[in-house]
Amino acid sequence: MASRDDLEKLAKLIRYYILVSTSEAGSGHPTSALSATDLLTALMFGGTFKFEADNPGHPNNDRLLFSKGHASPLLYCLWLAAGKVTEEEIMTYRKFGSPLEGHPTPAFRYVEAATGSLGQGLAIGVGMALNAKYIDKLPYRSYILLGDSEMAEGSQWESIQLAAYYKLDNLVGILDVNRLGQRGETMYGHDLSAYEARISAFGWETILINDGHDLDEILAAYDKIPQVKDKPVMIIARTIKGKGVSAIEDKNGWHGKTLDKVLLDQALEELGSVDKTVRGSIATPEELQPVDRAPGAIASDISYEIGKSVATRNAYGNGLKRIFPQFPNMVVLDAEVSNSTMAGNFEKDHPERFFEMFIAEQNMVGAALGLFTRGKLPFVSSFAAFLTRAFDQIRMSQYSNANIKFCGSHAGVSIGQDGPSQMGLEDIAMFRSIQNSVVLYPCDAVSAERLLEEAARHKGMVYLRTTRSGTPVIYGKDDKFPIGGSKVLRQSDGDSVTVVSAGITLHEALSAYEELKKEGVSVRVIDLYSVKPVDVETLRKAGSVTQAIIVVEDHHPEGGISEAVRSALGNYDIPIHSLAVTKIPKSGKPGELLDFEEISKNSIIKKIKELL
Amino acid sequence: MASRDDLEKLAKLIRYYILVSTSEAGSGHPTSALSATDLLTALMFGGTFKFEADNPGHPNNDRLLFSKGHASPLLYCLWLAAGKVTEEEIMTYRKFGSPLEGHPTPAFRYVEAATGSLGQGLAIGVGMALNAKYIDKLPYRSYILLGDSEMAEGSQWESIQLAAYYKLDNLVGILDVNRLGQRGETMYGHDLSAYEARISAFGWETILINDGHDLDEILAAYDKIPQVKDKPVMIIARTIKGKGVSAIEDKNGWHGKTLDKVLLDQALEELGSVDKTVRGSIATPEELQPVDRAPGAIASDISYEIGKSVATRNAYGNGLKRIFPQFPNMVVLDAEVSNSTMAGNFEKDHPERFFEMFIAEQNMVGAALGLFTRGKLPFVSSFAAFLTRAFDQIRMSQYSNANIKFCGSHAGVSIGQDGPSQMGLEDIAMFRSIQNSVVLYPCDAVSAERLLEEAARHKGMVYLRTTRSGTPVIYGKDDKFPIGGSKVLRQSDGDSVTVVSAGITLHEALSAYEELKKEGVSVRVIDLYSVKPVDVETLRKAGSVTQAIIVVEDHHPEGGISEAVRSALGNYDIPIHSLAVTKIPKSGKPGELLDFEEISKNSIIKKIKELL
Repeated sequence: MASRDDLEKLAKLIRYYILVSTSEAGSGHPTSALSATDLLTALMFGGTFKFEADNPGHPNNDRLLFSKGHASPLLYCLWLAAGKVTEEEIMTYRKFGSPLEGHPTPAFRYVEAATGSLGQGLAIGVGMALNAKYIDKLPYRSYILLGDSEMAEGSQWESIQLAAYYKLDNLVGILDVNRLGQRGETMYGHDLSAYEARISAFGWETILINDGHDLDEILAAYDKIPQVKDKPVMIIARTIKGKGVSAIEDKNGWHGKTLDKVLLDQALEELGSVDKTVRGSIATPEELQPVDRAPGAIASDISYEIGKSVATRNAYGNGLKRIFPQFPNMVVLDAEVSNSTMAGNFEKDHPERFFEMFIAEQNMVGAALGLFTRGKLPFVSSFAAFLTRAFDQIRMSQYSNANIKFCGSHAGVSIGQDGPSQMGLEDIAMFRSIQNSVVLYPCDAVSAERLLEEAARHKGMVYLRTTRSGTPVIYGKDDKFPIGGSKVLRQSDGDSVTVVSAGITLHEALSAYEELKKEGVSVRVIDLYSVKPVDVETLRKAGSVTQAIIVVEDHHPEGGISEAVRSALGNYDIPIHSLAVTKIPKSGKPGELLDFEEISKNSIIKKIKELL
Repeated sequence: MASRDDLEKLAKLIRYYILVSTSEAGSGHPTSALSATDLLTALMFGGTFKFEADNPGHPNNDRLLFSKGHASPLLYCLWLAAGKVTEEEIMTYRKFGSPLEGHPTPAFRYVEAATGSLGQGLAIGVGMALNAKYIDKLPYRSYILLGDSEMAEGSQWESIQLAAYYKLDNLVGILDVNRLGQRGETMYGHDLSAYEARISAFGWETILINDGHDLDEILAAYDKIPQVKDKPVMIIARTIKGKGVSAIEDKNGWHGKTLDKVLLDQALEELGSVDKTVRGSIATPEELQPVDRAPGAIASDISYEIGKSVATRNAYGNGLKRIFPQFPNMVVLDAEVSNSTMAGNFEKDHPERFFEMFIAEQNMVGAALGLFTRGKLPFVSSFAAFLTRAFDQIRMSQYSNANIKFCGSHAGVSIGQDGPSQMGLEDIAMFRSIQNSVVLYPCDAVSAERLLEEAARHKGMVYLRTTRSGTPVIYGKDDKFPIGGSKVLRQSDGDSVTVVSAGITLHEALSAYEELKKEGVSVRVIDLYSVKPVDVETLRKAGSVTQAIIVVEDHHPEGGISEAVRSALGNYDIPIHSLAVTKIPKSGKPGELLDFEEISKNSIIKKIKELL
């Protein structure tokens, strides 16, 4: 723990490197880093923050996350001041190949989750804190540096609500109220009481720092944190954007701008002599390990009767419960619809591993990422349509090597009477657009359970799309469903065309097959349960021996299954036709809507006959 | 204005039809409708709500929006009680083809915006109220029925912040605190003070109703609304879910469930005799019209020097300013990045038509929808990456026939040093997946301005993708850029392959062309500035006379330009190759990143040579 004098020296050192590294890079946000410098220097080296710097993965380390990711120079310079980044390294800031990216990513070894899209860090902190309090039962704290501008994001208030609901007294927000956003003053400027009133109304403890550059005041505020019980804590500090460089302090127009040579020289002169040898040490955490989990055991097996109607969403619920022994790091989160997604089945048996996240999908996904960073395997569910609410959080997760499983229920127009607001018709497009994602779409209960297992085993982001209505079980329990595979369900030598589908419309394709068979027309039917990656070889083969491929899907054509097939077969001369949702849907019975959108048995038959 | 006695009769009538219509439909949310019945009956027929029922489009009508869209039976029954829906019509609820859909859509003539994805109505109300206060200068009020469960959504708190910031004393939320969400109790149950504390902390006036079924208490609360100045008003009412049907009142497990024959008969007996002839009249608004706008005039013309480097985002800012005389209903909204999207150019000249929406993209898009419903033409901008934050609001807009223009700046890896968190790489996939959307992606300042004009003229949702860096002007001011068109920029009889691109990579394609030309290889180059709809005919023609098409894009391949081209050419034997962003990007110089992702000139040349 650094002396008061050393803290001053360290803050100076950090300011020095913030300035020179950003000027060297020629881009970045020095002013946003400078406003939080004293707050974070005091946190890290003043004894509050506990972290084994040589073992960032220590389960009882405190966590530190920059929700205001653009203050990244400060983050890197803090670790320089801790002796973990060299002067040479700091000068690579924002250069191609450097782990010191413009906004923090796990390329830098002390970053657990990428940030930079504002208003996401607190949710990640909620996940880390839920883990500490309810799962690992460890005393570590999660500290989240927040910008004042990003408090406009609704996601913050989702996190604020949920953190209070779960009494996360191990979650600490540090709100850097520097008054200025990107293009001018924030809604509340320097009015700390505006933040205090709003945040404390939600049941948080608020601790004000009137001068966020006064180390004594900062240290005194941090001393109060451990006394707070059963409430999250928000430190609210008045700071000056650009603090330390008087020419630009508290001035609008300096967001995301670096100092040119002349200004930099002036600023360094103003900073005065810097002790480049000073380094801070960080307090170490207690040597504690998470409560033990049983090692993975074998899950029980499934038993579904062929032909019986079971909704794939029910299979999801059954499967979660069933595979838990095999994946003891599982946690399940749901957005107040667990009796629809059927994640509630898991809750009944394992309430301690289920988190009700209420109707707040953004925080749910962020919290899942936080839980992932702490070694958990999160399963996240809501209606497919409502997962779009968290697209930005899902998008950001791809930059954190996240291993999160998403389940979207109530996919497609086949949900029926509830109407278009509840229909997931863009969800495949959304999840496909994420790098390295996997998209799975089972058509029956057996494949749903097996794909859930595949998803759990796979390292990475997986989306599982389920259906509201029951569909007949068509697979036996020994069928295999590898990611990237498909099932050729009907084939003969004389197949005229190939119908590719997945989920509910696969059954329409099978019905079309039966009807056409009576008329002497044979078609090939493929269950493309793995929408990403797709089984190129099986598709190519089917395409090469039949006249054309017809892709049928309960989803908009753009970004959906038909485009996945088109991308897979781009180099082959195989005509591909699409039957998809192309009219604005309405309320109605599932069958009426499948007919209306021309993705039902009748439309498939009609299309095939057109092609013959 | 109905008598106290008539209000009771009307509430009874409404309860009757809520019950019978939902039981007839066999699905729906009668309990969620019953909790708000007295609140809304009193609002509509007690003299507070002013609306010319025969002229729903009257500009000075109060607006009424069900943010808790699942209470739709109440909405339809209110209009039945107003004499505008027949008994026969109400029995078509949720049936295929009925305007009375499961959740409200504009298929019903008294619905202006579709709801049903929770937490979106208040934002739409913000837009309606901004219009009344700042643009049309009309005294109408916007009333938004809110559910307690949906207060968990962050979007609500975005709207609460912005409404207070803009002092929207013409916006009234009616919070139906019925304690129960879909699968159990909400975070705050029946604790009205929890809502009061939180909402009033944000600067709203809160008015509590301890018994939301006591018409006198409700009417007294509504009487206070006009006295509130410069603050939005939240009515917070304790209600009983299922009120009026004692068997299910305040009981968990009755969300989204209808009464079967036995329970319905019981419930109707409990309700007692219903006067089916009673109808309520609604107070009429003052006969006022919006302040006059000048009729459309001709916009000034553009003048960009060929070869000069101008960022398309700058052209967006210039264009907004330039075309305003021609589109006097324009309003511009931006999420605190107007000095990056360059929407700020418009603000300088027309501050009264520019709304700073701070970093709260969900509310921004909802407010744009609200402004659209009141006859405005909203332009909405942020970084392309951050528009993903509002995907659910964008998704819902497609069900409101919305005429909103979106601009996403900083598209692709070419933004450079800021790194992946700031890069729009899924935005084309997102906007393409919306029905009837248009996606435009200009490569230079001239096409950007012209496409902006096309977007403004087009009726529907349009997405314009702009680039951070400057790109050389390649078009003359008389070039035309119709939606659905493209530009063949380089062609000759001996073209080996066709390179299709748009935006920044189009210039990479042009550079590749020059270099290959020196080697005696000629390729066709097409600017596919209209990504949706695409110019099938030009692509087909180019594909038929060259060996293959290579699509180059600064976006992920899934749902992007290559898949748009594949879908357009699915029936033709044309090999299509994709160069797109397929590695996790980093910080770096724009050129380094284009090279890294293999979408630069060099990669295009390499790919072409592979194919020759």
